[in-house]
Amino acid sequence: MSDQEFSNETTRLVHLVSQGEVSEALHLLQTMPYREATRALLRLSPELRQGLLTNLDPAEAAEVVEHLPEAEAVEVVQQIPSEKAAAILEELPSDESADLISEMESGKAESILSEMDPEEAAEARSLIQYEEDEAGGLMVTEYLKFKEEMTVSELVADLKEKAEIYSSYDVQYIYVIDHSQKLVGVLRLRDLLLSPGKVRISNLMINNPLAVLHKDSLERVEEFFEEHHYEGTPVVDDQGRLVGVVQRSDLEAAVSHRNESQYLKAQGIVGGEELRTMPLGVRSRRRLSWLSVNIVLNVIAASVIAFYQDTLAAAISLAVFLPIISDMSGCSGNQAVAVSMRELSLGLVKPSEMFHVLRKEFAVGLINGLALGLLLGGVAYLWKGSLFLSLVISGAMMVNTVIAVGIGGAVPLLLRRFGKDPALASGPILTTVTDICGFFLVLGGASLVISRI
Amino acid sequence: MSDQEFSNETTRLVHLVSQGEVSEALHLLQTMPYREATRALLRLSPELRQGLLTNLDPAEAAEVVEHLPEAEAVEVVQQIPSEKAAAILEELPSDESADLISEMESGKAESILSEMDPEEAAEARSLIQYEEDEAGGLMVTEYLKFKEEMTVSELVADLKEKAEIYSSYDVQYIYVIDHSQKLVGVLRLRDLLLSPGKVRISNLMINNPLAVLHKDSLERVEEFFEEHHYEGTPVVDDQGRLVGVVQRSDLEAAVSHRNESQYLKAQGIVGGEELRTMPLGVRSRRRLSWLSVNIVLNVIAASVIAFYQDTLAAAISLAVFLPIISDMSGCSGNQAVAVSMRELSLGLVKPSEMFHVLRKEFAVGLINGLALGLLLGGVAYLWKGSLFLSLVISGAMMVNTVIAVGIGGAVPLLLRRFGKDPALASGPILTTVTDICGFFLVLGGASLVISRI
Repeated sequence: MSDQEFSNETTRLVHLVSQGEVSEALHLLQTMPYREATRALLRLSPELRQGLLTNLDPAEAAEVVEHLPEAEAVEVVQQIPSEKAAAILEELPSDESADLISEMESGKAESILSEMDPEEAAEARSLIQYEEDEAGGLMVTEYLKFKEEMTVSELVADLKEKAEIYSSYDVQYIYVIDHSQKLVGVLRLRDLLLSPGKVRISNLMINNPLAVLHKDSLERVEEFFEEHHYEGTPVVDDQGRLVGVVQRSDLEAAVSHRNESQYLKAQGIVGGEELRTMPLGVRSRRRLSWLSVNIVLNVIAASVIAFYQDTLAAAISLAVFLPIISDMSGCSGNQAVAVSMRELSLGLVKPSEMFHVLRKEFAVGLINGLALGLLLGGVAYLWKGSLFLSLVISGAMMVNTVIAVGIGGAVPLLLRRFGKDPALASGPILTTVTDICGFFLVLGGASLVISRI
Repeated sequence: MSDQEFSNETTRLVHLVSQGEVSEALHLLQTMPYREATRALLRLSPELRQGLLTNLDPAEAAEVVEHLPEAEAVEVVQQIPSEKAAAILEELPSDESADLISEMESGKAESILSEMDPEEAAEARSLIQYEEDEAGGLMVTEYLKFKEEMTVSELVADLKEKAEIYSSYDVQYIYVIDHSQKLVGVLRLRDLLLSPGKVRISNLMINNPLAVLHKDSLERVEEFFEEHHYEGTPVVDDQGRLVGVVQRSDLEAAVSHRNESQYLKAQGIVGGEELRTMPLGVRSRRRLSWLSVNIVLNVIAASVIAFYQDTLAAAISLAVFLPIISDMSGCSGNQAVAVSMRELSLGLVKPSEMFHVLRKEFAVGLINGLALGLLLGGVAYLWKGSLFLSLVISGAMMVNTVIAVGIGGAVPLLLRRFGKDPALASGPILTTVTDICGFFLVLGGASLVISRI
């Protein structure tokens, strides 16, 4: 591997780490722009990355881990000794460290958890029970909570005393709980600022604060933040006990991640994630799992062509138009898929509103089908001068465009309705159906008027 | 249009608004779950939506506007009288109202601005100068700033006095400016809480706070928040004067929006946005602008088939494999495009690191090309029993897969390097080149051994 193509800093980092000069390497990383440093770390071999982390102290190593994309971070932390890994994870925010642990092989995760500070380990264990896309998986456990019987001056004294621990907390809101850990109120820091010291916080707090449930879906939390202009929301369990806080920024980041993974799935990246630093076998296998389904579907669709071989032999120029019809129907249909996917994720359409979507899509399909059909029919006429050939081609293009946008618009709603992931399956279903219909329209149509083409 | 398919609430809302019962309608909307209410509003005709807004008071109307996606909100606010529109916009957060104004036709925008409170209008005018994806376009102007010579108790007195105005502000940080509006420090609310009243805030603040520049790109602001764990950052102009604040949640929302619009563009939605409530003409025209480019490219690619008509006539079964090769190469290439797009937007790869990407993609391409080629060659052999046919097909599939992943991986980097938007152009470039190569490999290869097929 030649390093010439990478920046000088990257080359220098590789050199420093391979010489074991980790504190120099850390210093170099700190002087690099953030993303440049991330890229440089990704260009290190897995062994060098491991060596770097093992030889830095935990807080410094945590800083390095935070630069890495999640999959890479999991990989490298798994490879270093559990004791060291535990110390590094303790330095990360609770939600990030839980995300990493939950992605590890269970044996290694267990061994790291057993090396962690018991309190931190218990916290991590409670967080890793949750899925990444539910409220419990989005929340942090670093937040301020106090018992309702405290006074303002007691609270302020605690803030002073534990200033260092709290320094990394987001403290816009302070949550108030009763003796059984139930959430009973929320206090804004500014209200505290404006109140005399002997007031009980239960008299100052906003009662019955809104909260999300720990098992609420990402969509539900998203809707919560659309409805309420808060920067954070408490999360409670089924008994109403306060278990964490979701920040608006964490929700937005999760939505962004979901959109990104939908895009990747729609382009055939199974699992919704691939980085070029992943092992070749993993990348190749994941991509192939999607491609192999597609090639089978493609062969099935193309068998329509085999069925009409005689027609095709009689008018060989039809073969030129088959891939065009196939590609263009795919394009038109994918536009409709994309709009449906987006309207679904913004909640602008419900899975049951199929007719609404079909009506809207058919209108677009008729106009665009007419335009594309006339264009392609015109090309056919100019090339071959056969009115019948051109009618068959333009008719097939028109009808198939309408079919493609209808299917493209409807399939994501249908899949969602049956609890399937529309991102991954919509494309293959769309192209298979539109290929079959398209080939059939061109070749079936041509066979009816074959003597005149 | 039949309303049967929509929920009872939606039907009732349409009824109430068309009867002019706007306060009842508002009440109904407020009792509906947030997204249900949004859907119901979108099912109203533009005229009814307009009537609803005109007849509510500004604060209530603003609440309705906030439910709507941006394009719809712009549309409806543009249609109502400027005086009313101005009153509604004043009720929205500064960044949202500026976003709406900047999307309106300039005549209407000017007329609304002239009806607004002069101070709010000046603020809006300063915000609409910025692009949506630069720091100035992400910032809000609702934040706390105080002069450095103030004392803690003066500041607290101001907070008390203006509590109502500040109630919608995010007040985690308080910014400190000098006499020329230059940002000189930042104060955390909690530090204020823990300090005696007569201390000057200039002695309490963190000096030389980090800030982003008003013209910084979305990527730059993103990198800032990756590097620093703050929930917000001040924005300064070229003279160092404080002009606004970007919240982490606003940055995350902008990133999410960018990812979504990249996905839509990649699927052929020019402009990166389409809602089915948009006028038919707009939807159809935008989609067609992409399709018409694609059909021309498709015709060019398919002319390779026309060139080899004699070969095809001699071995008609080749026609079955042409759309398969075209589709599958598109699939393989799109996977590589998606991974490159993602690595670019996460900053994990630089546009100049082309060889790195090509090396990584060729490795995957070789494995997957081999697998797909053997599979498709096997199908060809089983069907026709011709070794030469099957060799041509499987060779073409293998080579074209390698070409497709190479082009798919490299094109987004190249487009970015030349300042073009890779989301929109990568797909068409990819499929055109791989179609040409694929058709050429199949038909050119077959023509060499045509006597033996």
